[in-house]
Amino acid sequence: MPVYKAPVEDTLFVLNDVLGLEKYNNLPGFADATPDMIEAITGEAARLSEEVLFPLNLSGDQEGCTRHDDGSVTPPKGFKQAYDQYCEGGWSGLSVPEEFGGQGLPYTLHSAVGEYMSSANMALIMYPGLTNGAVAAILVHGSDAQKTTYVPNMVSGKWSGTMNLTEPHCGTDLGMLRTRAVPQPDGSYRITGQKIFISAGEHDMTENIIHLVLARIEGAPEGTKGISLFIVPKFLVGADGSVGARNGVTCGAIEHKMGIHGNATCVLNHDDAVGYLIGAENRGLAAMFVMMNEARLGVGLQGLAISEAAYQSAASYARDRVQGRSLTGPKAPDKKADPIIVHADVRRTLMQIRSVNEAGRAFMLYTALQSDIAHRSPDEAERQKADDILSIMTPILKGVMTDRGFENAVQAQQMFGGHGYIEEHGMSQYVRDARIAMLYEGANGVQAMDLVGRKLAANGGRAVMAVFKEIGDFCEDNRGDERLAPYTKAIKKGLNDLQASTMWFMSNAMAKPDNAGAGATDYMHLFGVVILGFMWGKSAKAALERIEAGDSRTDFLNNKLVTAMFFMERLMPETALRKARIEAGADSVMALDAAAF
Amino acid sequence: MPVYKAPVEDTLFVLNDVLGLEKYNNLPGFADATPDMIEAITGEAARLSEEVLFPLNLSGDQEGCTRHDDGSVTPPKGFKQAYDQYCEGGWSGLSVPEEFGGQGLPYTLHSAVGEYMSSANMALIMYPGLTNGAVAAILVHGSDAQKTTYVPNMVSGKWSGTMNLTEPHCGTDLGMLRTRAVPQPDGSYRITGQKIFISAGEHDMTENIIHLVLARIEGAPEGTKGISLFIVPKFLVGADGSVGARNGVTCGAIEHKMGIHGNATCVLNHDDAVGYLIGAENRGLAAMFVMMNEARLGVGLQGLAISEAAYQSAASYARDRVQGRSLTGPKAPDKKADPIIVHADVRRTLMQIRSVNEAGRAFMLYTALQSDIAHRSPDEAERQKADDILSIMTPILKGVMTDRGFENAVQAQQMFGGHGYIEEHGMSQYVRDARIAMLYEGANGVQAMDLVGRKLAANGGRAVMAVFKEIGDFCEDNRGDERLAPYTKAIKKGLNDLQASTMWFMSNAMAKPDNAGAGATDYMHLFGVVILGFMWGKSAKAALERIEAGDSRTDFLNNKLVTAMFFMERLMPETALRKARIEAGADSVMALDAAAF
Repeated sequence: MPVYKAPVEDTLFVLNDVLGLEKYNNLPGFADATPDMIEAITGEAARLSEEVLFPLNLSGDQEGCTRHDDGSVTPPKGFKQAYDQYCEGGWSGLSVPEEFGGQGLPYTLHSAVGEYMSSANMALIMYPGLTNGAVAAILVHGSDAQKTTYVPNMVSGKWSGTMNLTEPHCGTDLGMLRTRAVPQPDGSYRITGQKIFISAGEHDMTENIIHLVLARIEGAPEGTKGISLFIVPKFLVGADGSVGARNGVTCGAIEHKMGIHGNATCVLNHDDAVGYLIGAENRGLAAMFVMMNEARLGVGLQGLAISEAAYQSAASYARDRVQGRSLTGPKAPDKKADPIIVHADVRRTLMQIRSVNEAGRAFMLYTALQSDIAHRSPDEAERQKADDILSIMTPILKGVMTDRGFENAVQAQQMFGGHGYIEEHGMSQYVRDARIAMLYEGANGVQAMDLVGRKLAANGGRAVMAVFKEIGDFCEDNRGDERLAPYTKAIKKGLNDLQASTMWFMSNAMAKPDNAGAGATDYMHLFGVVILGFMWGKSAKAALERIEAGDSRTDFLNNKLVTAMFFMERLMPETALRKARIEAGADSVMALDAAAF
Repeated sequence: MPVYKAPVEDTLFVLNDVLGLEKYNNLPGFADATPDMIEAITGEAARLSEEVLFPLNLSGDQEGCTRHDDGSVTPPKGFKQAYDQYCEGGWSGLSVPEEFGGQGLPYTLHSAVGEYMSSANMALIMYPGLTNGAVAAILVHGSDAQKTTYVPNMVSGKWSGTMNLTEPHCGTDLGMLRTRAVPQPDGSYRITGQKIFISAGEHDMTENIIHLVLARIEGAPEGTKGISLFIVPKFLVGADGSVGARNGVTCGAIEHKMGIHGNATCVLNHDDAVGYLIGAENRGLAAMFVMMNEARLGVGLQGLAISEAAYQSAASYARDRVQGRSLTGPKAPDKKADPIIVHADVRRTLMQIRSVNEAGRAFMLYTALQSDIAHRSPDEAERQKADDILSIMTPILKGVMTDRGFENAVQAQQMFGGHGYIEEHGMSQYVRDARIAMLYEGANGVQAMDLVGRKLAANGGRAVMAVFKEIGDFCEDNRGDERLAPYTKAIKKGLNDLQASTMWFMSNAMAKPDNAGAGATDYMHLFGVVILGFMWGKSAKAALERIEAGDSRTDFLNNKLVTAMFFMERLMPETALRKARIEAGADSVMALDAAAF
């Protein structure tokens, strides 16, 4: 049976000791997030995750969602009750401004507790997760009336939200979408078309579902410049906020997916459905990107969350399962065999997952903090710098943490031997659930191209320079510290490889853009390793400082230093490999005829 | 919908041009395997795989196996008919000696066609696959009477076979097994105990099932030295070969697995079942290793087979699916978007899979050829050398090709974007099916430990020296060839890293065995990359020679050179990373308390 305990101690270490959240209490909402408050909130989220969400994870996977003949959909048993508890706890509005019924706390804190909930039950927590994205889009691009009509009920969780982007023939290339919107005399639109892969698309957990739908207004230009964003409620909403007639949007089918069975991924048929334009005509993609960017951070978080959950079960199994003897002599002579955690190859696997998870948690919270600063800082220069860093971190967090999260789930499953392949142990579910995160919200190759093709060169490379400076300064500032030297030296070496690869693109991808494409995925991962290494550098520094200050978390802090060293020894050397691949260029990649594949 | 065409042209290239099978026609059975005969046999196997086995793959996964209340098991629809066609074609006895009803052809050829069948329907072909392993064990260790009684009906496919090793509390560590055997006055035994994870354990496709069962004879020593191997037929066999009474072995349950749903993986309960000892008392593990070694080659082959099948569907999808435009301008201006195969990141993915598959095919057939030489050569020195090489290659083929096969299936699935996550496209099945190959027949960590802990040091390192010499000689012999220089140079560099890492173990793992364990998986993969590179070197050499000779397969041969170059540029640099990890040693791996994980 899988086990899960929210890693509260580690979250608090990252927030308080590594990121120093207290330094940001000039930002709105941050003053309320005192260390005591953070401890209380993470503790409460841990309880909900461990006791309410997690017990429904395996059963939700096995039962899945049921579509009835009338198009209604029932999620797995217990999901509605757990969702109600989530809403009652106020979790859905944690970082939403108070004027819309939220608590206005940092998005960073929302992300911290979001990890626990995704670890505990990714399929379930995606229902409110989609609502968050929809709320963000309405808050940024919606009219005041739209905000008043929809947001408070979505923030309370009474209503949920979805994102309707993909169509059968287009996902990555939304410029081809065909769903059309016909203007009506009253200012509304009628929407017709088929959308697929709609997470949380239909269910009975909320009184209404607010679909955000991309469509093309009749006569709009072709391509991405003719796409608009619409609100299409499942039930029309009266002027008084009451829920009225059923709208023309129905669930045509539930997709048969590899994983996240507890989430109703729907084919949604819009048939003359009433829709309301959000923002300006033909500017739907911009509005959609508000959702997408937030969603990408959320998906990167899922990669971490599943990796952490899978790790915990693997570690627990490795302590319990006895099989074979240690190479250095029996460790449990009273038993017929030693627990498999004595084997160096088993430990190497666990250390590898752990070293990515802990740095990944710091990376995820660091990125969330940039989002808070970018949105809340009173200082424009600070906002811009944070927004720059965020723009670089978003595709990397999404692409790298979901690739590594999946890989880690596979490795955690491996610890179980043949038992890992049996559904009852829950490890297969982690692998199957983690798999989607590499695909949705922009497949990871799209993230890599976003990084290399768009983010690197934006504003003359201002953003990437800012990131390099952060990391370079860290190495430089701690140059004199001998205890940190093994860490900073490795980080500096990685940064050099990263900068050299960046220069290589500058020199070689202008004339031959395929050189960028051929190296994009390796570049994203090279960048990811350096950032994770940087996070380990910051964590090691914080650990050393706390040890020096006589902090009582002795084992915890010493384990940080060991795990950081493991990362430097075993993960950082990847940068040279990635650089070599990038510099190989596109020649052998592009040489074959398409027919030869 | 998935697509599959057996890669006959590539198989023939490897057998004829790379390995030069004709050179071995002094070995029994090889004289019959003329190029014409090989072409006919691979062509016929291709037809069976594409037309009979493959159409049942997806449906078999979706339907799965059904256990009835009486313990009988029904495989998916169509499996029995397809199995009958397989048997009618004589495929089950292809490489079995003629005196036992087989055709006595090379095991290498059996492996070549086995790839196609595993690509087409891994779950189905495992039924006869298990029979092959059981036949091998009876032929090596069984009495003449046992051979006569069981083997001909197993070779014809009228009866099938299984391997009963694992118990709930032990898999890797068979020394702990509890199934017991009580001697009877007539020389038979009565077997009692529970076995789990028994592939093809119960079904109605054959008239009888011959279970090979590990058990401990009453009073035998504890541990691995007290294990014996037994034949336990589902139906007892009369002296005249007739099938008689039902034996006391029943299917208690079918496991709920992540994949290979079409194969009935059973819990088998032995309840006072009649069993017959194979070979000597307490020497069961040795007999079992005959099955295991053959099975490990077969599982490595599965890794390749699924990777190839997944690749083909991904390449086909990449040619068809239009989405976005090439970075170098529209390639299909008449369409709304270009096929995604124009994108460098998509091609990089396909090239990566392809470069591993083609070298993997050569590796697999090269290893099978060593097995043929080791078993059939009249020359003892030749037999010993081949057996040495085989002993090294077996864990590497199993561990590396299944790790890479799975990784490739995941990457092939990635080409489909969100559609890859939907079961109807078949890519999820490839990933789920490929996953088991990393786990069974010894989890891949066990393969790595077998290589590092057992195979490296055996006979003073004689075997590993033989492999290094093969590769070193290839580089040396072709030193003067400028066209080959880019390949040999990269291989030589990889070999240097491999030899240095081997030396590192010699110097550092004696005093501290955890240094071996901590580096074992990286060492296995380092070795694997070098062997795959070596296979590319041999393939490039063969391609250049054929081009020079005016061979008409111009595109095919030129594509070989390009793909070989891709491998040298992008895969070979991995050796330095693996070496760095190995040399990091066990300190940070072993430092944490078990409770800290």
